[in-house]
Amino acid sequence: MRDLRKKDKLEAAAGDTLNQTLTIQRLDVCSDESVAECVNSLPEKQLDVLVNNAGVGLIGPLETISIDTMKHIFETNFFGAIRMIKAVLPAMKQRQKGHIVVISSVMGLQGIPFNDVYAASKFAIEGFCESLAVQLLKFNIFISLVEPGPINTEFEMKLMEEVAKSQFPGVDATTVHSFKDIYLPASHEIFTTMGQSPEFVAKAVVNIIAKERPPFRYQTNPLYTPLVALKYADTSGELSVSAYYNLLFRFTRLFYISTSFLKCITCRCFRRQITPT
Amino acid sequence: MRDLRKKDKLEAAAGDTLNQTLTIQRLDVCSDESVAECVNSLPEKQLDVLVNNAGVGLIGPLETISIDTMKHIFETNFFGAIRMIKAVLPAMKQRQKGHIVVISSVMGLQGIPFNDVYAASKFAIEGFCESLAVQLLKFNIFISLVEPGPINTEFEMKLMEEVAKSQFPGVDATTVHSFKDIYLPASHEIFTTMGQSPEFVAKAVVNIIAKERPPFRYQTNPLYTPLVALKYADTSGELSVSAYYNLLFRFTRLFYISTSFLKCITCRCFRRQITPT
Repeated sequence: MRDLRKKDKLEAAAGDTLNQTLTIQRLDVCSDESVAECVNSLPEKQLDVLVNNAGVGLIGPLETISIDTMKHIFETNFFGAIRMIKAVLPAMKQRQKGHIVVISSVMGLQGIPFNDVYAASKFAIEGFCESLAVQLLKFNIFISLVEPGPINTEFEMKLMEEVAKSQFPGVDATTVHSFKDIYLPASHEIFTTMGQSPEFVAKAVVNIIAKERPPFRYQTNPLYTPLVALKYADTSGELSVSAYYNLLFRFTRLFYISTSFLKCITCRCFRRQITPT
Repeated sequence: MRDLRKKDKLEAAAGDTLNQTLTIQRLDVCSDESVAECVNSLPEKQLDVLVNNAGVGLIGPLETISIDTMKHIFETNFFGAIRMIKAVLPAMKQRQKGHIVVISSVMGLQGIPFNDVYAASKFAIEGFCESLAVQLLKFNIFISLVEPGPINTEFEMKLMEEVAKSQFPGVDATTVHSFKDIYLPASHEIFTTMGQSPEFVAKAVVNIIAKERPPFRYQTNPLYTPLVALKYADTSGELSVSAYYNLLFRFTRLFYISTSFLKCITCRCFRRQITPT
C-alpha cells in the first residue's frame, strides 16, 4: 500500500494469513526508490505473479483538465505499471517463469465521453502490454490484461456526487449540460445496472492466476462486451462513435429503456451464470 | 515547424503558394507558450482544420529505455496533440465547425514487439480521440484518426541502421538476439514490402479533409488491415499474440515467404487500386 496507516481494514480481512502467507508492504508506484525498495525486499527478488492494481480516475470536460493533471493520471495508471514491470522483469526472465497481471478497464478498449484522459491512460497500457507480451512468451512469462467495467465502490459514488456539484467556469453551456445533465445521470444508471463489486474482480484475478496458460485479455463484465464489439465490427469507427452519440444525446430515453431491460435480464439467476469460473 | 532554419526544402516545394495560401509558422507542440503564440497569431483564432502530425519514434528492448525517455515520447506524440486540440477547441466549438486530424499509426491499433512505448503513445491518442469524438459531434466538429503502416523515410532507415549497430549492455542475450537478429531484419523486410511514401499519406489526409463527413478512422495501408483484424476476431487476445509470436520467432521462414508473396501481389497494377480515392 502507498500509505501503511490505512492498513487496518486489510489486516482485519487477512485474519490468520497475516504475516504467514500475507505480508503488507509499503509501495508507491510513482517512485523509483519505493519500487526498488519493495522489489529488493523480496527473498532473492523472486516474484511469481505481479498484479498491477494501482490506478486513479478522472472525469470531466476536457477544458477543466490541465496537462499537469493529465500527467498525474498517467504517472500512476501507465508509468506506475511500467515501473513495476521493469523492476520485476530481469528476475522473471532469468527464472524463465512469471505472470504479470494488469488491471486495465473496458475503457482501455473503448473510449467513453468525458473519460478522455482516463481512457487514454488505459489504452496506453493495453498497447504497451500487447507489444511486450509477444516477446515475453519466449521466456515463458505471461501478461494478462483484466478489463473490468464499472466497479461499485464508495469512492466512485462519492466522486460522482462531488463532480455533480462542481461549477465549471470557462466551459461552454452546452458541454456543461452534456456532462451534468446527460452524462452523469447515464453513468449513475450504468453503475447501478451493470456495476460489479471489487470482490468480483478480485476473484476473477485469482482464477486467472491459477490457470496454467492464462488468457491475454479478460473482460470481467460480459454485459459490456457488445459495446466493445461495435468498434470491432466497423473499422471506420463510424458505428461506435454514432451509436454512443445517438444513445447518449439523441435517444436518451432509449438508453434508459435499455438499462431497464438489462436490469430485468440480469436478475440473480442470470448473475450466477456470469460468476467467474 | 519546430525549427524554422529547416524551412528551405518546404519553401521550395511550396512554390507560388508561399505566403499566398501557405504560411510557415514556428510551433513546438511540447511548449504551452509556443502553442498559444501560434494559435493566437491566426486571424480571429479561426481554424478550419488541425492536422496533428508531430511525432517521434522509439524502438528497442524495454531494458534500455528509461522512464524519462518514455515520457519524452509521450510529450510529443500524446500531450503535444492534446495541447493543440485544447488550444483550438474553444473557437471551433463557438463556430460549431471544425475538423481535427490526428496522424496515429497501425501501432495505435495493434502493438508490435520492441515498439512497446511508441505503440502505447499511439494507443493513448486513439483512446483519447474515441472518447472526445462522441462529445464533439454535438458541435459539428469531427475527429479523424489516420493510421499509416510503415512509412519509408530516410530518417526511418537511418534509425534502423543505427540501432542495429548499437550495443545493449545489461540486456540478456536472448532479448538482444530477438531484437537484432529477428526483429530488425523482419522489420526491414516489412518496410520494403509494405512501406508507403510520406506523400501517399499526405494525399490520404487531403482526401479526408475534403470529405463532408470525414471518417473517424482511416488505415492508409490495406495490407495491414488483416493483421489488425486478428485482434478483433478473438477477444481473449490469444490469436494475435500467438500469431505474432509464431510468425516472428517460430516460423520465421514462413514470415519471409509471406512477405515475398505480398511483393508479388502488390505489383504496380494492384498498387494503383489502393491509391487513396
